[in-house]
Amino acid sequence: MADKKKFVEAITSREEDFAQWYTDVVTKAGLVAYSTVKGCTILKPAGYAIWENIMHELDARFKATGVENVAMPLFIPESLLQKEKDHVEGFAPEVAWVTMGGGEVLPERLCVRPTSETLFCELYKDIIESYRDLPKCYNQWCSVVRWEKTTRPFLRTTEFWWQEGHTAHATAEEAEARTVQMLNVYADFCEQVLAIPVIKGRKTDKEKFAGAEQTYTIESMMHDGKALQSGTSHNFGDGFAKAFGIQYSDKDNQLKYVHQTSWGMSTRIIGAVIMVHGDDSGLVLPPRIAPTQVMVMPIAQHKPGVLEKAAEIKDQLAAAGLRVKVDDSDKNPGWKFSEQEMRGIPLRVEIGPKDIEAGVAVIVRRDTREKQIVPLAELTEAVKAALEAEQKDLYERAKAHLEAHIYEAKTYEEFKDIVANKPGFVKAEWCGDVACELKIKEDTTATSRCMPFHQEHIADTCVCCGRPAQKLVIWGKAY
Amino acid sequence: MADKKKFVEAITSREEDFAQWYTDVVTKAGLVAYSTVKGCTILKPAGYAIWENIMHELDARFKATGVENVAMPLFIPESLLQKEKDHVEGFAPEVAWVTMGGGEVLPERLCVRPTSETLFCELYKDIIESYRDLPKCYNQWCSVVRWEKTTRPFLRTTEFWWQEGHTAHATAEEAEARTVQMLNVYADFCEQVLAIPVIKGRKTDKEKFAGAEQTYTIESMMHDGKALQSGTSHNFGDGFAKAFGIQYSDKDNQLKYVHQTSWGMSTRIIGAVIMVHGDDSGLVLPPRIAPTQVMVMPIAQHKPGVLEKAAEIKDQLAAAGLRVKVDDSDKNPGWKFSEQEMRGIPLRVEIGPKDIEAGVAVIVRRDTREKQIVPLAELTEAVKAALEAEQKDLYERAKAHLEAHIYEAKTYEEFKDIVANKPGFVKAEWCGDVACELKIKEDTTATSRCMPFHQEHIADTCVCCGRPAQKLVIWGKAY
Repeated sequence: MADKKKFVEAITSREEDFAQWYTDVVTKAGLVAYSTVKGCTILKPAGYAIWENIMHELDARFKATGVENVAMPLFIPESLLQKEKDHVEGFAPEVAWVTMGGGEVLPERLCVRPTSETLFCELYKDIIESYRDLPKCYNQWCSVVRWEKTTRPFLRTTEFWWQEGHTAHATAEEAEARTVQMLNVYADFCEQVLAIPVIKGRKTDKEKFAGAEQTYTIESMMHDGKALQSGTSHNFGDGFAKAFGIQYSDKDNQLKYVHQTSWGMSTRIIGAVIMVHGDDSGLVLPPRIAPTQVMVMPIAQHKPGVLEKAAEIKDQLAAAGLRVKVDDSDKNPGWKFSEQEMRGIPLRVEIGPKDIEAGVAVIVRRDTREKQIVPLAELTEAVKAALEAEQKDLYERAKAHLEAHIYEAKTYEEFKDIVANKPGFVKAEWCGDVACELKIKEDTTATSRCMPFHQEHIADTCVCCGRPAQKLVIWGKAY
Repeated sequence: MADKKKFVEAITSREEDFAQWYTDVVTKAGLVAYSTVKGCTILKPAGYAIWENIMHELDARFKATGVENVAMPLFIPESLLQKEKDHVEGFAPEVAWVTMGGGEVLPERLCVRPTSETLFCELYKDIIESYRDLPKCYNQWCSVVRWEKTTRPFLRTTEFWWQEGHTAHATAEEAEARTVQMLNVYADFCEQVLAIPVIKGRKTDKEKFAGAEQTYTIESMMHDGKALQSGTSHNFGDGFAKAFGIQYSDKDNQLKYVHQTSWGMSTRIIGAVIMVHGDDSGLVLPPRIAPTQVMVMPIAQHKPGVLEKAAEIKDQLAAAGLRVKVDDSDKNPGWKFSEQEMRGIPLRVEIGPKDIEAGVAVIVRRDTREKQIVPLAELTEAVKAALEAEQKDLYERAKAHLEAHIYEAKTYEEFKDIVANKPGFVKAEWCGDVACELKIKEDTTATSRCMPFHQEHIADTCVCCGRPAQKLVIWGKAY
């Protein structure tokens, strides 16, 4: 492969240039290729396999809550996009328009979906008649398009892959409960599977989704202290229902508007995995999401019995339910180790003639590089235990990093000093006025990430204007 | 739901109007909804769940042959689409063009992918350098767009869902072997999972894919005797490699062009499942692909213990690995039975107070409506056996139907008579001249479906022109 030539050259270190480190990792770990299609990247096998695992895990969690999958059209007619005022204002500037099809100019232009609220509304209007038809909890896995001027793999691309859930409920209470439920699904998934601790909270009006009454978010902290919005869940109230006329006849025979939600997680989250766990040797993947969890490395593989033993170990670990491969290529072991580390494979098992003679193997964790000599009879259990420990440690390390980089600011001077000099988040009180959000962004480039569910009272006044405080807000620079 | 009101009204019978029967089934079984987006349909939960099962089964079979999944951009710049002459001529007339993005007119218009050969070629050109990089066997699951004037759910829609595999090989022999291998994967999948017998063969030059050297196909026969092309596999030789400059340095240090293939199966195949197995009560799904395999039907469910017993049976069958639900809605049993039949659920288990007292349940097959009274202690085994028998019988019935509707024609009079009067396929010899294909289509509307791998010699001369026969061809009217 083209990128292998330079494979063992060191990548840029995180401290030297975090952005360049990120680019080095996504390309050298084989996650992404650039395409000549402006703003669009290709997910290569190593990158797509992570997304497959994410889809698999999330989909099962969705279905356990009663969600059903559907597939909606790729295109939205302009008149349909325009039905809800705030929504169209939010999205129209960044969509791609199809104006010709089948050799003819179209009578009405179609946008390539930037999100599908309007299509789901149109469907729900058709299929919902009575309270018996509620709730409707549909989801789709697809790609969406939002025109971007500058792009970075996973973090900001014109086309990206995601899931979008859209639900319709009889009451405002049920819609609110579903909105929070799905945020919790995302938070649990991030913490348990991706080993990424998150802060749950509500977006300010300025930051909420176009057309939503409330947007809830999970925010995670990257290694450089910046925030990444990792999943959002929106409560639309009956705004879309009124715009689209989605009514049902209730038990009391009254026609009522449904209450709706939507919620999404995208390939962006792979950017978070990279930037939370990666190190100067490359990608570090939590075992639960790693496409390959264990790489068996035959040492002196030309010697009799080595490749056979490596294959036997592979089969044994695979039979225990692990995702395992053997690297029996003709590269030297040092190269193979670098490659495995660059690709973030959580564990390697080294097996050579001396190990076979001694009845042992060497296991090496990707995160700590800790080596352990294990009797072959205990290998499967040791590998499982090491993977579990690695999963747990990655989470604990990320959580410690998050907690160590959240600061409190009571005055605006403190606030500006922290944002300028300390990578991380700032907790500060806010009056509720968008003017203060705009001023803070203007002065510091930090934005309100969320009003955390867990509210503390750290001061009586807004950190920016000095008026009475309404909400504690988490602020930070963001991807 | 809106469509439930008319649910128990009979659908059009197949013999009366097959096209209307098809439309009735896809809508009343809840597979599809029409959208206001011209030519695009919505896959509703019952329809998408079939596609999910198809994806799951096919994906595992692909991966077992070394295929890796990727995600490619949705858009193809016009200049890229134009690189291979035959390919662009085949597709340019039916694509959708994006001409505006992010509020600006684009410097180069982008087509929404109708298929992605050109994008894969561009990627392969970048990542293939040496024989060590070969073969490359990539696949993607996505939707594609081909502008259609008239549309029918699953069979012909502007947007449809599919997988497209694209491979690059060192030699012509390897590419040919992969082309045939994937056709066999499709054929085995159709026969073993979808219970649809297929005829494997090669397309004539007239019918082959735009840019391919050879196109192989599996053709299946619908209940009305018409053909449906159910999966295709293309050998491109080095045509695309030369157009795109995809070369590798071989072991002998010579630069050589790769040889490529592509192969695809789409949501069209769901149309085949419907039209091969369905009957006048609605959809009939083979158990291996049915999202719900068993519906447990509590009878007199208000009586004490009935719902509990139904739930217990459900849990017991689910624990045995079956996909099972309970219909505990407040509809009457007759309605529930019709609904289960319309939706094609392969088996129902009826359980009422008298059954519980007698320690039995009644199982009823969807295809034969055969009833069987089974002791509760033997229920799981009986259900499994009934599902296996149903799967097998559906295949055998479809195979008998196929074989009973293939006719031989030695003269053009015979040929025209069969096509006009007997639904099904015609086997007839062909001289190899496209002029005869065109004349046959003009005279009869039948097209050459394939030159079957299994060649027989039934006459010495072309059925159309009387010149020497070159190939036996299967002809038929097609969807």
